[in-house]
Amino acid sequence: MSSAAPAPEEQPPRPVRFGIMGCASIARKLARAMLLAAPACAVTAVGSRSEAKARLFAADNGLPAEARLHGSYEALLDDPGVDAVYLPLPTSLHVQWATAAAARGKHVLLEKPTALCAADLDAILAACDASGVQFMDSTMWMHHPRTAKMHELLPADVGDVRVVNSLFSFRANEDFLQNDIRVKPDLDALGALGDAGWYCIRAILWAVDYELPKNVIALPEPVKNQAGVLIACGATLYWADGKMATFHCSFLTNLTMDLTVVGTDGTLHVTDFIIPYEEKSGPFSVASKSNFAELSNGWVPQPSKHVVMTDLPQEALMVQEFCRLVQGIRDAGAKPENKWPAITRKTQVVLDAVKTSIDNGFGSVDVVS
Amino acid sequence: MSSAAPAPEEQPPRPVRFGIMGCASIARKLARAMLLAAPACAVTAVGSRSEAKARLFAADNGLPAEARLHGSYEALLDDPGVDAVYLPLPTSLHVQWATAAAARGKHVLLEKPTALCAADLDAILAACDASGVQFMDSTMWMHHPRTAKMHELLPADVGDVRVVNSLFSFRANEDFLQNDIRVKPDLDALGALGDAGWYCIRAILWAVDYELPKNVIALPEPVKNQAGVLIACGATLYWADGKMATFHCSFLTNLTMDLTVVGTDGTLHVTDFIIPYEEKSGPFSVASKSNFAELSNGWVPQPSKHVVMTDLPQEALMVQEFCRLVQGIRDAGAKPENKWPAITRKTQVVLDAVKTSIDNGFGSVDVVS
Repeated sequence: MSSAAPAPEEQPPRPVRFGIMGCASIARKLARAMLLAAPACAVTAVGSRSEAKARLFAADNGLPAEARLHGSYEALLDDPGVDAVYLPLPTSLHVQWATAAAARGKHVLLEKPTALCAADLDAILAACDASGVQFMDSTMWMHHPRTAKMHELLPADVGDVRVVNSLFSFRANEDFLQNDIRVKPDLDALGALGDAGWYCIRAILWAVDYELPKNVIALPEPVKNQAGVLIACGATLYWADGKMATFHCSFLTNLTMDLTVVGTDGTLHVTDFIIPYEEKSGPFSVASKSNFAELSNGWVPQPSKHVVMTDLPQEALMVQEFCRLVQGIRDAGAKPENKWPAITRKTQVVLDAVKTSIDNGFGSVDVVS
Repeated sequence: MSSAAPAPEEQPPRPVRFGIMGCASIARKLARAMLLAAPACAVTAVGSRSEAKARLFAADNGLPAEARLHGSYEALLDDPGVDAVYLPLPTSLHVQWATAAAARGKHVLLEKPTALCAADLDAILAACDASGVQFMDSTMWMHHPRTAKMHELLPADVGDVRVVNSLFSFRANEDFLQNDIRVKPDLDALGALGDAGWYCIRAILWAVDYELPKNVIALPEPVKNQAGVLIACGATLYWADGKMATFHCSFLTNLTMDLTVVGTDGTLHVTDFIIPYEEKSGPFSVASKSNFAELSNGWVPQPSKHVVMTDLPQEALMVQEFCRLVQGIRDAGAKPENKWPAITRKTQVVLDAVKTSIDNGFGSVDVVS
């Protein structure tokens, strides 16, 4: 056997130069994530509707002194020192600015809900595709190592998934219910469905390996505000093989983040799936092949409790994964990873169907991919 | 002040003399519970379709040697040394034998589902009422001290209940799916809805202080066996004030016993509500007034975990409570406690509405008390 030639001295990959496009509250969390995701990532620019807001954001969030501050989104997109943008603008602005970013060759990390409807998302994805840039939505929990661990256990420990339940609610205060962009028809017109329901739908799709349901039926009696924006709603999803899932999302009840996956062989419970109770640990439990004890006075075996630790928070892991893909494209001629836009689109398609069912009086709506 | 006269020497109350009416598998659990519930309870007779079966049951379950063995249910009901019967017969036989028992002045502890429909249950309750005997259904988890503890916490820690989810499934084996009375149209015609759905409906009603929903809508696509008996199904329940609840019950998926109660101020989770994982301890958790941590990277406060211990299993506590009520009636001229038949009837009424919705093509069915 010939021995391998010594590896050439490897250059560390150059950081992906991020521009933060809009100073929404959620952008603070992402700014921190980008700093934690160094050296894969560097924040090189901030764009806002005014340079003063960009300056304040940079200072408040400890961004590097050399980060460029732009007083318009256009100026940020014109910045040649920006490889990728993170876009936390209100949903109604996504199609305009995400397509503009892609058209200038910027990779796009887009807040959820990604668009007001699948047609708008398709315009964004087509622009990314045309420019060969990476697209990813900012659904952070997908990147927690707990998520991978749970998914790994599903086939053997849960078996054939038959029933999935997901709940995401938080109790918004009066100021939120009056003024937040998520209750405004011209900003985030999908309301609680887009903001909270997005996570439930994604979690359900995740649990069934992204097989689209054949139809959805919204739960009657959703809550809307005076402007007609959804404040609480839900739906049941049906698959051709008899699987079903139910979700409920709301701005009106206590913080709740449940995902329950019931299969032929086991049951997965996680009650903080979107944001773990603690940043560095993610708990969940799995009951597998559970039986009644003799005389049905207990369970054999009992569920196993798991905790998956992470040094970096899930949003920093998301940024790292996004940067890894961008580096591959920018530096090594790789193609964009299609997995991420594909699951974004499935999530949006189901969300559209739920919205249609609500608008049509809670009838069954076929899910068309 | 005059000092109180010394209390007369109190006699311990005489045991309630139980007759076990039918040797179903579940009766083994109750026989043990009755032995554990001594001295409030004594098993004085067993009735079966043959004396040999009664004898075998008595021997197998460690019943007292002096317990009388009856070769027919009629003979058991004629036994003057029996105060109360426990009746675990198939549901289709409940109305006949529970009314017969009440007519002979026997107090009735009746297995669930209590009847095939509310009209049958009403016949049973009317017979108990006419004879002045206590009625209670054998829903054991109601009597675990955990249940009382959770209920005590609901007002302050969960607040106004808005959403309740309940799941109860177990994965029946082929023998069960072919031969168990719970899949036979002439025995337990309500199938999984009567057996497993009963618990879900009761739990939902429990969570809302037994306020009846205004209407129910069954989930489409229930699973039925070839004889038309429900093997898996579910429903959504709606209240006038916007509360809603969803349940799913099944013989086809892993053992799962979830009750989730989401309110304005908190969320209750219990995942073994029907039969605790371990006989002597009942866990649950409550997240109350949960907020996102700064930057939404955790929860403040985190949910509290509770464990409620019990020396006696919940089924023995149920027997003790039943015996306490019977002793009051038999020995002290008390009236039967109306709470128990009232919640039985509400459970049955909702169950009826779900069945009607399934039979009518999953339309909305008003719940009429």
